[in-house]
Amino acid sequence: MSTFQGAKDLFGGIIVRSSEEPQERNRMEQLLKESLQVWSTTGVRGVWFEVEPTCAEWIPVLIQNGFSFHHANPELSVLLKWLPSDEPCQVPSYAHTMVGAGAMVVNDKNEILVVQERYYKRPHWKLPGGYVDPGESIATAVKREVFEETGIKTEFVSLVAVRHLQSREKNPSARFGCSDIYFVTYLRPVEGSTEIKMCPRELSDACWMPLKEYATHPLAFEVGKIFATQLMAIADGDNPAINCLESIHQLTNSNSQIYLVEGKQNFKL
Amino acid sequence: MSTFQGAKDLFGGIIVRSSEEPQERNRMEQLLKESLQVWSTTGVRGVWFEVEPTCAEWIPVLIQNGFSFHHANPELSVLLKWLPSDEPCQVPSYAHTMVGAGAMVVNDKNEILVVQERYYKRPHWKLPGGYVDPGESIATAVKREVFEETGIKTEFVSLVAVRHLQSREKNPSARFGCSDIYFVTYLRPVEGSTEIKMCPRELSDACWMPLKEYATHPLAFEVGKIFATQLMAIADGDNPAINCLESIHQLTNSNSQIYLVEGKQNFKL
Repeated sequence: MSTFQGAKDLFGGIIVRSSEEPQERNRMEQLLKESLQVWSTTGVRGVWFEVEPTCAEWIPVLIQNGFSFHHANPELSVLLKWLPSDEPCQVPSYAHTMVGAGAMVVNDKNEILVVQERYYKRPHWKLPGGYVDPGESIATAVKREVFEETGIKTEFVSLVAVRHLQSREKNPSARFGCSDIYFVTYLRPVEGSTEIKMCPRELSDACWMPLKEYATHPLAFEVGKIFATQLMAIADGDNPAINCLESIHQLTNSNSQIYLVEGKQNFKL
Repeated sequence: MSTFQGAKDLFGGIIVRSSEEPQERNRMEQLLKESLQVWSTTGVRGVWFEVEPTCAEWIPVLIQNGFSFHHANPELSVLLKWLPSDEPCQVPSYAHTMVGAGAMVVNDKNEILVVQERYYKRPHWKLPGGYVDPGESIATAVKREVFEETGIKTEFVSLVAVRHLQSREKNPSARFGCSDIYFVTYLRPVEGSTEIKMCPRELSDACWMPLKEYATHPLAFEVGKIFATQLMAIADGDNPAINCLESIHQLTNSNSQIYLVEGKQNFKL
C-alpha cells in the first residue's frame, strides 16, 4: 500500500502537509484510506492534515473520513483525527480567547481620553483600545489603537488591571463566541499631542473628560469606573501599579513581557 | 435571481448559515454566484458563511469564489469575503493567543510543587499548570490542572504575575503558531492534601522542593526563578499580590474576573 509520508510530531503523531504532498482529490482519497489503515496499526496517535487553500478539495474528503477541524485561518486549514481508541484525545483546543487592550490616557490637566464607538448596542463613554494583532505586545497594540482612533500619540507607563471574561455558549455578544482578556493600561500623551483627530469609521465621538468625572459618569461602564478609581488610587500612592519587564523567552527566543508588581507606583497624576 | 437569505450583522454584513439554508453543492454554487452579484451592488460589507461539517462540500466552492477561512473548530467552519473595494477589511483576526496558567502551590513547610513534563525538549523543573479550557476562569483551570497532574487539591489565593509571549512566524516552539499568555497563580494545598499522585501520561516526575531552592535551581526556567523571587517578596510584605475581583460583565451577563492590586499582600508563607 502507498501512504502519505508525513512528518512525525513530538507527541507520537503524524503531520501531512498539502504543500509537500499535493494530490488530486481522487488520488488523495485513496492515499488517505490506505494511510489510515497503516497508521492505525502502528500506534500513531494524532493525525494532522495541514491543507492550503489551493487543496481545499481535500477538506470534504477528510471530513468524510472522520477528521475534524482543529483550526483554520486564511493561509491554512488544520484538521485532526485522533486514532487511539483506548485514550481520550490529548490535543488542547486551539486559541479561544480574544486579547484586547484599553488605554487610560491622562493628560497633564488630569483629563482622560474617552470615546464612543460607532457600532454599538447602546452609547457609552469608553476607553479607546482594541484587539492585539498577531505578534504585537500589549503596549504596541494599545498605542496603535489610540493613535488610529484619536490621533493622540502616547507612551506606555504601566498596567492598571486585567479582566478575564468567560464566553457563554452561543452568546452573541462574545466576539466570535470567544472568551476575552482585556489589559487596562495607563498611557501618557507624548509632549504636544493634545488635539483629537477622531476616526469616524470607528467612532461617533471622542473627548478629554476630567478623570474624576469619568469615575462616576452615568455613561461609563461599571468596569470603567473601577479602573478609573484604581488609577486614581495608584496615582495617590495608595495602590501600586503593575510594571512591565521586557524579556526574551528562554526556549523560543521570542519577545515577551512579564507584568509584575514591584511595590511602588511609578507615576503621579 | 435567487439568493441566499442570510442574516444581517451589526456591521453591515451578511451571515449565511448552512444549518439554515442547506443546499447540494451544485445548487449552492449557483446560489452563491447570484448572491455575490446582488450583494456587491447593494453595499454589503463582510459576507460570512458558517458551514457545518455536514456541508463540507461548500468549502472548496467558497474558496474558489474568493472566500478565506476566518476560523474553524470541530463544530463550525467560518469563511469570509470582504466586498468593499474602497475600504480595507475591518474584521479583526480570530483569537491567536493560547491562554494558560501556572501554579505556585506552596505547602506549610515552604515547599513548592514542581513537575517535569513527559513530552519536552529538555528536562526542567517547572510549575504544574496548563491551558485554560473554553469557559473556565484562571482559578478553575489552574486548580484542575494541578489536580490532574499531581493529585493535589488546592485553593486559589492570588495572582503573582502575567507573562505575554509573542509568537514568531513559523516558530515551531509556539503551540499552533500562537502567542501565549501565562497567568502565574499562588495556590495553597487544601488541608490534608499533601501526597503527590503523579499523572504518568503527562509527567515524568513531580516533587515538593523548598521554595528557596527552586528560586536558584539550575533546572528551573529563568522566568520560574523570577516568579519564585516575586512570590517570596510578596510573602515578606515587600511587594503586593494581585487580587481577583469576581464580577458579572454588564453587557453580556457573563462571568468575569478583574485582577487588581489592592495595596496589601493577603498571605504569608
